Amino acid sequence: MRELNQRIVLDRLRSGGAATRPGLAKDTGLSKPTVGQALLDLEQDGLVRPIGRTSAGPGRSAVLYEADPAAGHVLGVDIGRARIRLAVADLAGTVVARVDEPNRCRSASALVRTVHELASRTAEQAGLGLSDLVATVVGSPGVPDRSSRILHYAPNLPGWGRRGLLDELEEVLGPSLLVENDANLSAVGERDRGAARGVDVFVCVNVGTGIGMGIVLDGKLFRGAHGAAGEVGYLPYGWTGEDEGGWTPSAPGLLEEAAAANSVVALARERGLTGARSAREVFALARAGDAGALGVVEQEARRLAFLVASVSAVIDPELVVLGGGIGANTELLTGPMEQALRRIGPLFPRIVPGELGEDAVLTGAIATALRAAQEIVFDRRGGQAVTQRSELLVTD
Amino acid sequence: MRELNQRIVLDRLRSGGAATRPGLAKDTGLSKPTVGQALLDLEQDGLVRPIGRTSAGPGRSAVLYEADPAAGHVLGVDIGRARIRLAVADLAGTVVARVDEPNRCRSASALVRTVHELASRTAEQAGLGLSDLVATVVGSPGVPDRSSRILHYAPNLPGWGRRGLLDELEEVLGPSLLVENDANLSAVGERDRGAARGVDVFVCVNVGTGIGMGIVLDGKLFRGAHGAAGEVGYLPYGWTGEDEGGWTPSAPGLLEEAAAANSVVALARERGLTGARSAREVFALARAGDAGALGVVEQEARRLAFLVASVSAVIDPELVVLGGGIGANTELLTGPMEQALRRIGPLFPRIVPGELGEDAVLTGAIATALRAAQEIVFDRRGGQAVTQRSELLVTD
Repeated sequence: MRELNQRIVLDRLRSGGAATRPGLAKDTGLSKPTVGQALLDLEQDGLVRPIGRTSAGPGRSAVLYEADPAAGHVLGVDIGRARIRLAVADLAGTVVARVDEPNRCRSASALVRTVHELASRTAEQAGLGLSDLVATVVGSPGVPDRSSRILHYAPNLPGWGRRGLLDELEEVLGPSLLVENDANLSAVGERDRGAARGVDVFVCVNVGTGIGMGIVLDGKLFRGAHGAAGEVGYLPYGWTGEDEGGWTPSAPGLLEEAAAANSVVALARERGLTGARSAREVFALARAGDAGALGVVEQEARRLAFLVASVSAVIDPELVVLGGGIGANTELLTGPMEQALRRIGPLFPRIVPGELGEDAVLTGAIATALRAAQEIVFDRRGGQAVTQRSELLVTD
Repeated sequence: MRELNQRIVLDRLRSGGAATRPGLAKDTGLSKPTVGQALLDLEQDGLVRPIGRTSAGPGRSAVLYEADPAAGHVLGVDIGRARIRLAVADLAGTVVARVDEPNRCRSASALVRTVHELASRTAEQAGLGLSDLVATVVGSPGVPDRSSRILHYAPNLPGWGRRGLLDELEEVLGPSLLVENDANLSAVGERDRGAARGVDVFVCVNVGTGIGMGIVLDGKLFRGAHGAAGEVGYLPYGWTGEDEGGWTPSAPGLLEEAAAANSVVALARERGLTGARSAREVFALARAGDAGALGVVEQEARRLAFLVASVSAVIDPELVVLGGGIGANTELLTGPMEQALRRIGPLFPRIVPGELGEDAVLTGAIATALRAAQEIVFDRRGGQAVTQRSELLVTD
């Protein structure tokens, strides 16, 4: 009972901000002495702290309490093909340290070592050691398989699919670690602080070096039966059953081969746009009005329309949040995408740009880690032993 | 408190079968006098009845009680393009009346009238009037829009999309009515008593005159943001972004145009199989070893592989249950489907035949109606006024 009351008071302070004892009693329906006892317990355990006194208004002034943001810190890591981004945040979600480095690793061992070094450096920036972190969430391409400890379907990170990789990461980052698909974390991030706030059924599509999609259904991340939900790079873009070959000669194959960054460059080359050596440059040319580049962008948009049409026919989302190096060019893409979608069929959702840009994965990692950490710091208050921390992190 | 105890005892009798007062006390943790009072109340309200006494074993014999199956009846209706099927079941799920008629209606008015007549006839068979039914669930092609009272996307039923149709159905069938997409009900049926028992993430694909799909995620029916989840007839089968036209010349368009019954007949005609006038006949020829018909079946299987590959890339189901007039030919289809899927990509689920055949929609309708009815009969016990019955039916 005493524990439950502490929990109620703490949750109220976390969600509603600082408050006095009488204010908390009013908000929670608990008696003032009960609230007083809970505050005493929580303060002793370092979860709540007094931050001053109310002064205005009639009557006696009262002590103002808040959930102590420094009661714990979390680490978020975004392992991208091009960059590695890390942040440490306190329990209130305020980022207190940031590191952002290019990813030059050529092997899984080098990458694990680099992640370890960067994580230590980020913690140090925050005045902490790695062992002080309450929870760590890592976003990575691929599908983490929590039973076999492997990351499936991450061909763009060399060696990243090797046996035991999740254990290696846990060894250097600590046991309170969750490895999550990066597109899934983008979706969590966009719902927490971005374009999908308050939306219960949506997808977050990242188009860049690869193609990934995070799915939120009924307000919760949906991972599928084997964690592979949203692996839309495997959509059968060029497949028909018209002959035994199956693949349409004019269409190049699975969607990831057809619509990720490399294929934009290949399209540009086919059309003689020799000036553009990267997808970014193709979009820059298009933005400057180059007709050839605009043609490439429109073709890319028609390919992405296939993705949106497929996803809509299956799960009917309210919203498609578009992000990633290519997806971020929403102002060039949505026009021709919607034009194509109107020709495909009657059902399509709103398409909007992500609001978090390159921080989407990291924001989702921090948000996920915070949810876990808020449980953990409560469970281990008063020096109680904490068991099965990793278990806690595996659930939503 | 008294109400809660009644509820606990009733739920135990419903899920665990007949029991005595001491047995119920043991199973529920309630005291024997409490159980006795709850049984008395429930018997008085007609929800529980004594069915005999225990006799074997030492000690005094005790009265055996069961949840009274006759405490309420429900109606399930499957409005198919070809047939209308109806059943009345008691609260234990036992079907006590069945009607099955061809659908010859050419207009929505005629269909509403026919459904009304057949519903009355089915209720009469069970010795009941329509107003005695506690809950009615109707399965239909299309997407019911509960706010605008329209059925969207049901082009195969003439006039079925007209404004106010849901109100017309409610007028003839009573207010405790839920209209649900037929493929959704198939999924509920296959999970309740068919091929998907115990499976939490699966889809149920019906291929026949049209193509529909019901989706169960985390054990619950998933309808999407606008009720259109699973409308896989709209998958962009022949679409690529390769030119401004968008549609591949060799592929005929949206999946429903390419893979429903009509297209199987068209394929057969193209290949000179003049003997087969229906999809059913094409499959019969294939089963008899006709090489031309087998070619058609394989082409159909490759088209359906597109469906399964698309669904897998989006939601990663554990299982695909295949049903409907065409889908039921699983033994001919799954071989070439799996062969095609292996060539498309690394991710595909098990494909199994539905176990309920043509009864799938009706079974799901009855199961859905029963869940609602079990709430309703409890809520209106003792002559209490029942408000918002339809509301109850709208939730899962």
